[in-house]
Amino acid sequence: MLPFEVAEYQERLERVRKNMEKQGVEVLLITDPANMNYLSGYDAWSFYVHQMLVVDLSSEQPIWIGRFMDSGAARVTTWMHDDYIIGYPDTYVHSDVLHPMMYAADILKLKGLGNKRIGVEMDHYYFTAKAYFHLQKELPDADLTDADLLVNNVRLIKSDQEIEYMKKAARLAETAMTNGVNSIRAGKRECDAAAMIYYHMIAGTKDISGDYPAIVPLLPTGKNTSNPHLTWTDRTFQEGETVIVELAGCCKRYHVPLARTVTIGAPSKLMAGLASVAVEGLNKVLDGIKPGMTCGEAEALWRKALKKHGIVKESRLGYSVGLNYPPDWGEHTASIRNGDRTVLKPNMTFHLIPGLWFDDYGMEISETIRITENGCETFTSFPRELLINMPSAFEEHGEIS
Amino acid sequence: MLPFEVAEYQERLERVRKNMEKQGVEVLLITDPANMNYLSGYDAWSFYVHQMLVVDLSSEQPIWIGRFMDSGAARVTTWMHDDYIIGYPDTYVHSDVLHPMMYAADILKLKGLGNKRIGVEMDHYYFTAKAYFHLQKELPDADLTDADLLVNNVRLIKSDQEIEYMKKAARLAETAMTNGVNSIRAGKRECDAAAMIYYHMIAGTKDISGDYPAIVPLLPTGKNTSNPHLTWTDRTFQEGETVIVELAGCCKRYHVPLARTVTIGAPSKLMAGLASVAVEGLNKVLDGIKPGMTCGEAEALWRKALKKHGIVKESRLGYSVGLNYPPDWGEHTASIRNGDRTVLKPNMTFHLIPGLWFDDYGMEISETIRITENGCETFTSFPRELLINMPSAFEEHGEIS
Repeated sequence: MLPFEVAEYQERLERVRKNMEKQGVEVLLITDPANMNYLSGYDAWSFYVHQMLVVDLSSEQPIWIGRFMDSGAARVTTWMHDDYIIGYPDTYVHSDVLHPMMYAADILKLKGLGNKRIGVEMDHYYFTAKAYFHLQKELPDADLTDADLLVNNVRLIKSDQEIEYMKKAARLAETAMTNGVNSIRAGKRECDAAAMIYYHMIAGTKDISGDYPAIVPLLPTGKNTSNPHLTWTDRTFQEGETVIVELAGCCKRYHVPLARTVTIGAPSKLMAGLASVAVEGLNKVLDGIKPGMTCGEAEALWRKALKKHGIVKESRLGYSVGLNYPPDWGEHTASIRNGDRTVLKPNMTFHLIPGLWFDDYGMEISETIRITENGCETFTSFPRELLINMPSAFEEHGEIS
Repeated sequence: MLPFEVAEYQERLERVRKNMEKQGVEVLLITDPANMNYLSGYDAWSFYVHQMLVVDLSSEQPIWIGRFMDSGAARVTTWMHDDYIIGYPDTYVHSDVLHPMMYAADILKLKGLGNKRIGVEMDHYYFTAKAYFHLQKELPDADLTDADLLVNNVRLIKSDQEIEYMKKAARLAETAMTNGVNSIRAGKRECDAAAMIYYHMIAGTKDISGDYPAIVPLLPTGKNTSNPHLTWTDRTFQEGETVIVELAGCCKRYHVPLARTVTIGAPSKLMAGLASVAVEGLNKVLDGIKPGMTCGEAEALWRKALKKHGIVKESRLGYSVGLNYPPDWGEHTASIRNGDRTVLKPNMTFHLIPGLWFDDYGMEISETIRITENGCETFTSFPRELLINMPSAFEEHGEIS
């Protein structure tokens, strides 16, 4: 079931160990499910209970510690030997007496790691404040240190195989967007469009099956286009409305996000104008971005293009994207924004999302890109413009029985 | 857009304040998105950045603190006045210099709350270890205390309107399960069945639209039925295989989970026998469970039924369920398991999931129930048995265009 050669996992591990040495981390406890997957292959919806991957400088294989019920999934989805997979009993799950970190601490002590300098992912969703305090209490001889984003930083530059999965994810994004946009018509409900997006995102194509994306399709409509993170409702689309669709294709947990704005019927002059500003700015970045530049310098291309139209965007233009699990497909490392000094390198991948949000309207037209040797290329091939759903322009699509 | 009367939110808040007083908490910082929704109505996919609801004993309305980009969503989805909605700048998002909790601490100080006894949700996904340490540093006069599950405990007993939404969610679970099971046939891919489940789960019925569930459909197949939290792949179903489908209908963020096991073709004697054991045990619980009993006593009904077949289930039988966001639809409070002393009361709701998992096969047949005045009732009405997909028993369903 492994999506990569074992050698690729081992090479990633090598780079993580180098970062550990640089940061003075002897043992790394990895609780971010994307980081766990990146190093071990582990893939299951089990991150709602405490679990981790333990990487230490001296052992050849990481140790998976999770719920006993999920240890079978660890055996089938990872490359490690069964001896490196350790399940804790169900009595540790959502208990007010026992905590999985007590169990994990016991394992660390048993392996002779209880007195090491131990890195933890301090700002990751799946490493709670209580998890920290249990480790601190149970490992009095350890030195807990912040290793947040240590693995995420290793993930910044993608391998060729990772890029291949992102290319497949792009095909999924295209089919989901095409079918989703096509079902945004007056009289249909928002949930009907979301259902159509989901169907095509997951069924994919004959050759590419879709995984669940780390963020659900976002579908702000009408005045709510000013609120980018709203999902669908049971409302019926109205003639003349604007709808934003933000989604991602996901293949082997690798994401390619894509956002477009659709008007039902002819767009207002305001909306058409805003779209041309967004596309013009986005094109400036796509034309000018290249390796060697910093993320901040890339953002300046966008800001300069916007400035002459008198528009200032408060939020960042983009962020590093790739392998992920809910709740976010962003990697939390490099952002395309003012002041970010990350130097762009080939095979870095970003979602550039020039969202322009005002008090009661908004607009998104995005592209996911790969930095190449000389510039960049977009993953998806989809009209980079305001989409206009004229009633006559689309055939009625089939209904599912 | 509010799914409940303002009075219901205020009554919930009153019960939370009572719990705060009991636990000696003057100010409560709520980071669990389900708890935020429960008290304010807030509903957006923004929990991948730090955000919170601040409840203090003296103020009439809670304060929402989140990303500036999401403050519009807070204005349209909550009942609070705009003055109680405070957005932090985008420079605080995934930054290595600024942290949203620095901003939140400033707001707390400004409101005169910086020297209070402040409760935080210590073991919730969206309250990280780093969030805790930033608050501790920025609020040296505060007394931070663990208030994990304080609001979750208030959520245990559902209101009549909450039960109404769960009844609608049950209709969604039924249509998703019917269509999902129908598409599990030899030659189809796992992703095709998952896509069909998603379509019907979200498009719902003419009158009920579906929300995204807090857990994606789980679809372990063949030998992997022993690994309950695996999702679908691009594999093709084979004649003779067993497939587990676990999904939930979700309405206004209220969940009704449902799990069934399907065989493609006639089942093995082992599988048929296992199913009858599971159903017999589940029926014993459905017949015997009633208010006044503890959760532990309810589980004993199941354990006793299983014991005579020589089977021991390591994991809990069930857990409290209702309002939620990814990554879990469980409420992390009462579990139907040995030793849980929570006393059952009318309008508590549980997912009873007698999953039986062995080394290379497994079985799930579940029901979500409401505790009534005298016993319990199931939300869904779906054959409580091993489902058998004989090639002739199903008409070919339509394809989506």
